Amino acid sequence: MRKFNFSAGPSMLYEEVLRRVQDGLVDYNGTGMSVMEMSHRSKPYEAINADAEALLRELMDIPSDYDVIFVQGGASMQFEAIPLNLSRDGAYPKGDYVITGNFSEKAYKEAVKYGDMVAAASSKDKNFTYIPALSADSFRKDADYVHICYNNTIFGSRFASVPDTGGIPLVADLSSCILGQAVDVRDFSVIYAGAQKNIGPAGVTVVIVKKELANRAHPLCPTMMKWSTQIKEKSLYNTPPAFSTYVATETFKYVKELGGVAAVQKANEKKAGMLYDYIDGTDFYNNPVEKPYRSIMNVTFTSPSKELDEQFAAEAAKVGLVSLKGHRLVGGMRASIYNAMPPAGIEALIAFMKDFERKNG
Amino acid sequence: MRKFNFSAGPSMLYEEVLRRVQDGLVDYNGTGMSVMEMSHRSKPYEAINADAEALLRELMDIPSDYDVIFVQGGASMQFEAIPLNLSRDGAYPKGDYVITGNFSEKAYKEAVKYGDMVAAASSKDKNFTYIPALSADSFRKDADYVHICYNNTIFGSRFASVPDTGGIPLVADLSSCILGQAVDVRDFSVIYAGAQKNIGPAGVTVVIVKKELANRAHPLCPTMMKWSTQIKEKSLYNTPPAFSTYVATETFKYVKELGGVAAVQKANEKKAGMLYDYIDGTDFYNNPVEKPYRSIMNVTFTSPSKELDEQFAAEAAKVGLVSLKGHRLVGGMRASIYNAMPPAGIEALIAFMKDFERKNG
Repeated sequence: MRKFNFSAGPSMLYEEVLRRVQDGLVDYNGTGMSVMEMSHRSKPYEAINADAEALLRELMDIPSDYDVIFVQGGASMQFEAIPLNLSRDGAYPKGDYVITGNFSEKAYKEAVKYGDMVAAASSKDKNFTYIPALSADSFRKDADYVHICYNNTIFGSRFASVPDTGGIPLVADLSSCILGQAVDVRDFSVIYAGAQKNIGPAGVTVVIVKKELANRAHPLCPTMMKWSTQIKEKSLYNTPPAFSTYVATETFKYVKELGGVAAVQKANEKKAGMLYDYIDGTDFYNNPVEKPYRSIMNVTFTSPSKELDEQFAAEAAKVGLVSLKGHRLVGGMRASIYNAMPPAGIEALIAFMKDFERKNG
Repeated sequence: MRKFNFSAGPSMLYEEVLRRVQDGLVDYNGTGMSVMEMSHRSKPYEAINADAEALLRELMDIPSDYDVIFVQGGASMQFEAIPLNLSRDGAYPKGDYVITGNFSEKAYKEAVKYGDMVAAASSKDKNFTYIPALSADSFRKDADYVHICYNNTIFGSRFASVPDTGGIPLVADLSSCILGQAVDVRDFSVIYAGAQKNIGPAGVTVVIVKKELANRAHPLCPTMMKWSTQIKEKSLYNTPPAFSTYVATETFKYVKELGGVAAVQKANEKKAGMLYDYIDGTDFYNNPVEKPYRSIMNVTFTSPSKELDEQFAAEAAKVGLVSLKGHRLVGGMRASIYNAMPPAGIEALIAFMKDFERKNG
């Protein structure tokens, strides 16, 4: 029996997508082979690869002056690719980082060796339970870019709106909210996201780059980390992570069938709203994030004690609600409720929470 | 109906492995989820990850003073990772490259920007139809490493034996022959291989490194390209390409069931032998590679004319023998016959070749 899997990523995929992938696993679409076995230079795979880009462009309304590539290495690889691709006339760049959680901090720490990086603002003082107020004055006037992580997977917070950078190119990690809530791509110069939350299986990473920034790589940037390498070859410079891209493509098709990102966002807001409403209505559970910055993708909460937190996650797993243990940096519980988490999963979680409160409150 | 797929990679996987993967695609082993949906920190995935390493160690008899990691980026990423990981006291290294085909040449060209690299020997003069004679004198005495590509996918050649480097660490790309023929890991200091020929789906790359060389990364080596990053974390530093690793693990199990690498090599030699014997017995087809260096993984051949070559590949595809067109650098045909190509595929190919010769000879 399928479980409700609240993992922060890799995480649930749409069951319907999994079943379609399963049907074609040994013989895809009459080709006589699995997608895993196809030459990446073959017509069927080139069609999948082209669909991946076309569908993502359609779902996110990506303007034509942006390139879209599918690469390997995860968001972690992009932490270093960003400064290496955004050099200033071939010298290492100046980057201003907004530290709102674990991954934005990692992105900053990795960038330091490739340029003049500063932490322009941070919410670490209150364990990342809010997003700092930002304005154009928050950043160095001559910074080459500003980096943010739009949704903080571990802490369950998110930007309530896109910050004003005063015209400095904005680079954003959208790993845990891409396709889960609408964004205006024009607000960003670079968007990157690991697939393993809302897009598909781990192993493929989306990078969306404004064309005017796509050719600024530092001379020592590895070829394989250069965005332009894959842009020129439409993500087929070398053998791509083909199966992951294929499952992503099937997910894109399915999100389109569901009505696109707007429809999915509406459903996500409803799911998160149910959980937050329940948490806010009881003294037993607590969510520490300031309300305007609460993520609709990752809902964190604590019970009255660490012991009860442990007990909660263990007992929940026994009834098919798995991976609810919070990250060690936060403790408590975390329910990651990405696109593919059905409303029934939220209902089951709330029913369990009520029952647990009744027994332990 | 399943086709006989002679693609150079991605290429055929064992049908039995595909069927096992298909069975568990929506609910793996009673976990209630697909492997694609599992947290990489969960027990079931950690078991898969541990099995991947343990099984590869067993199949290749990898000594305990070697580390084994599974990374992203393909062999292409390793072309740059090699000089960046093998620095000499923090300075860029000296590397001696043996150029025996397209990929060894690419590896060399990518390395040039990270050190003092030379092409110590090459078989480009005869379009890579042989392997140059090598001895310890072929290399600079103070080179930090010697790099070879053991099997040349495009040209259908391979080293007949491991070259003597006079004690200089030997780095080898085994992408297209790993697990297809036995090697003594002790002959090498670093082995790397993209998965998409004999191991599993694209998206995961194996790196086997002698421990004494695992901590020599250049200060500017990106964290994500450093072997030590993934060694320390047992390939789980960041989200791994989990599904590809899982299918690789299932393949390792199956190769073990088949009797291990020795048994598979024997079958491969038989398959390749049948093809070479047929080619050598007719004047219609020709294989250009000098006999001692003929690959047992990739068999190249030409018909009497370019027009017939085109016709051959097109007609073969119509009867379910696909991806036989040779690489543009060689022309003609190429039959990649990795582990998962069944003997029936070779028989069908030879039958087609005979028929084609009869009609066009």
